[in-house]
Amino acid sequence: MTRPGQLPDSLPESLVEFDRATDGGGEPPPSAALLPSGLRDVLPPEAETEARAIETMMGIFAAHGYDRVKPPLLEFEDSLFGGSGAAVAGQAFRLMDPDTHRMMGLRPDMTPQVARIAATRLRRAPRPLRLAYAGPCVLLHGATLDPERQVSQAGIELIGIDDPRADAEIVAVAAEALDALNVPRVSFDLTLPRLAAVMIEQAELGLDQRRRLLHALDRKDAAIVAREGGPLAGVLGDLLLSAGPVPRALAMLMAAPLAGEARRLAERLEASVQAIRARLPLATLTLDPVDFRGWQYHTGVSVTVYAGREQVGRGGQYVGGADEPACGLTLRPEALLRAAPARPARPRVWVPASAIGQAEALRAQGFVTIAGFDSGAACSDAPGDDIAEAARLGCTHILRDGQAWPM
Amino acid sequence: MTRPGQLPDSLPESLVEFDRATDGGGEPPPSAALLPSGLRDVLPPEAETEARAIETMMGIFAAHGYDRVKPPLLEFEDSLFGGSGAAVAGQAFRLMDPDTHRMMGLRPDMTPQVARIAATRLRRAPRPLRLAYAGPCVLLHGATLDPERQVSQAGIELIGIDDPRADAEIVAVAAEALDALNVPRVSFDLTLPRLAAVMIEQAELGLDQRRRLLHALDRKDAAIVAREGGPLAGVLGDLLLSAGPVPRALAMLMAAPLAGEARRLAERLEASVQAIRARLPLATLTLDPVDFRGWQYHTGVSVTVYAGREQVGRGGQYVGGADEPACGLTLRPEALLRAAPARPARPRVWVPASAIGQAEALRAQGFVTIAGFDSGAACSDAPGDDIAEAARLGCTHILRDGQAWPM
Repeated sequence: MTRPGQLPDSLPESLVEFDRATDGGGEPPPSAALLPSGLRDVLPPEAETEARAIETMMGIFAAHGYDRVKPPLLEFEDSLFGGSGAAVAGQAFRLMDPDTHRMMGLRPDMTPQVARIAATRLRRAPRPLRLAYAGPCVLLHGATLDPERQVSQAGIELIGIDDPRADAEIVAVAAEALDALNVPRVSFDLTLPRLAAVMIEQAELGLDQRRRLLHALDRKDAAIVAREGGPLAGVLGDLLLSAGPVPRALAMLMAAPLAGEARRLAERLEASVQAIRARLPLATLTLDPVDFRGWQYHTGVSVTVYAGREQVGRGGQYVGGADEPACGLTLRPEALLRAAPARPARPRVWVPASAIGQAEALRAQGFVTIAGFDSGAACSDAPGDDIAEAARLGCTHILRDGQAWPM
Repeated sequence: MTRPGQLPDSLPESLVEFDRATDGGGEPPPSAALLPSGLRDVLPPEAETEARAIETMMGIFAAHGYDRVKPPLLEFEDSLFGGSGAAVAGQAFRLMDPDTHRMMGLRPDMTPQVARIAATRLRRAPRPLRLAYAGPCVLLHGATLDPERQVSQAGIELIGIDDPRADAEIVAVAAEALDALNVPRVSFDLTLPRLAAVMIEQAELGLDQRRRLLHALDRKDAAIVAREGGPLAGVLGDLLLSAGPVPRALAMLMAAPLAGEARRLAERLEASVQAIRARLPLATLTLDPVDFRGWQYHTGVSVTVYAGREQVGRGGQYVGGADEPACGLTLRPEALLRAAPARPARPRVWVPASAIGQAEALRAQGFVTIAGFDSGAACSDAPGDDIAEAARLGCTHILRDGQAWPM
């Protein structure tokens, strides 16, 4: 028997050699290359592309007046999971602060942190307050369809205003950021995460029926909605099936027999659609009125952003700190990169050690310069060695006679 | 008696109102604004300045051929603390992976992660391998002089080469990055963290004396070094006092009675100084030959980077994964910002809701645009209201008649 991590006696010699070559000396065992599920090394060129994408988005956010904040990775539980953070508490790693012996959480989402900053340190800043943020978050468990547990976020929050034009601004700024990254086939799927719950509440269904019905809606199971919906079977079934492009879906929603809070939610969605259309006449808008995916702190008009079928962001209205109205939108850089076209690589020029003084001028022209550690003499004595070395290091150019020559 | 966090009966009414205003409704208690020691919210404009500083540095690193990698925040203990990572294990938070029930560590430093990537996923990439990285790290405890526990790093690693010119490249690239940020009064303090230990080993001192002597050297206590040094009292005392500008300190080091491994270390330092001088003739170089601060994985020529008295980075030679020679340097963006001059803020123009279509052109001119949520009519009916609103939101300009006017 071979235990995990132990080499079996019969391991082929080639594999043993391979292990020695990669993990010799005082190095960790072969398992060192194994990272926990959902955590990974981002390698060149992807890591650079992701970082540039984040800074491009942050540049767009800044140009619209969204000022950057950077909350810490860890906070005490009572602040991280207070207010809108309660909705994300189940997805967070906990650890103990050795100084105070109080429990801390590793943030699974940044929106509640930004809401906390707005309600505490920036409580005296004028409203509406526009804040932007970017950074990594860590989830306790990956999802079935998306196993990643370390997830970058780049987002904006517009705090202290409840206005359809605020919803429209959030969507318009996100659209501009996606456009700057050349993300193709962007669409915004609008939802009202509380609509179904409000309608079920109004219909005074029993607790069990209510639970089965919400579960069926979550799974988009029209048959069970029809069977369990009671007085709501017709309208909920119609709304479930109405999901699609806004003109038709919105018309069906507004024609539905909604009352009180449910009608108010629908009317606000209609106003938000008009405001979004005014800023983005050509955007692809869809509507799924009884959907309630995503973070549970979203309370009003919400939006899921797609690039083709890839979900690249999410946002909407929520109740901020000190009960302030707020809305925001968070984009996911990793998902964006799966959707966006790759950037062309910069030219790389190999510079012999003897000519290192000329590298600065090449960098000023946009070249990446790769300094050689040759003896210097090799440069003039054996030019073929230089070319081999430049090729070995993946260079596109080589410096010779003061000029960068294509390989 | 009043317990911490509880309001005393006699609290002034104004303070009670203040608490209500900032923490009303279902919000967290006033303690929500309290973060664990050494963890903090970075607010505008500092968060933006820090992010730009990091990207500026990463741009310089990329231009020198250092390709960006992004290791995860969490790894299993055996990979995070294997190899050079063993030296940082005592400074890391641990948490359990709920999927595998194996322990993970939250990284306190990125260099061992990059060494792991080089030795595993990038083991077949040509050497020398140049990698760059930037991201947050978390320390279990803050230091007395520097209580921060979340520390950003931005650094480079040059892997697979043992050459004084490699040390010089690392220092030269860091110097260029600091120059790009206008960091004033930069100096590089060279050290040989193993020199004192090697000399004490060679002198075959007893374990207790060895420990007292290293402790005295660590505290730079010349009196105890003289008392405990035995046969090394003279030379170690001289080297301790020799710390200072390179020409004199290096001359004293090379004149000292060093043998074997100690002499080899000194000669390598001399060669590195020559190589650094060749690339940076004007840099301020100091030498502290028996200092051994910093991460304990540095094994050869090491360097601490200062801006005035602020320590802004650290690096040096170490043994990478698979026993590869390597050197690297990590800069600390937060410390850099304390040393670097602030950037001027961009002009902010208030745009009334009725003129939102003109905002894009203003952004293209470099303005930050702040969209108004006025009624639209206010724009023409009561221009004073617009000015008051623009001033309230901290704008430097206001859009009127298609032009941005200074306030």
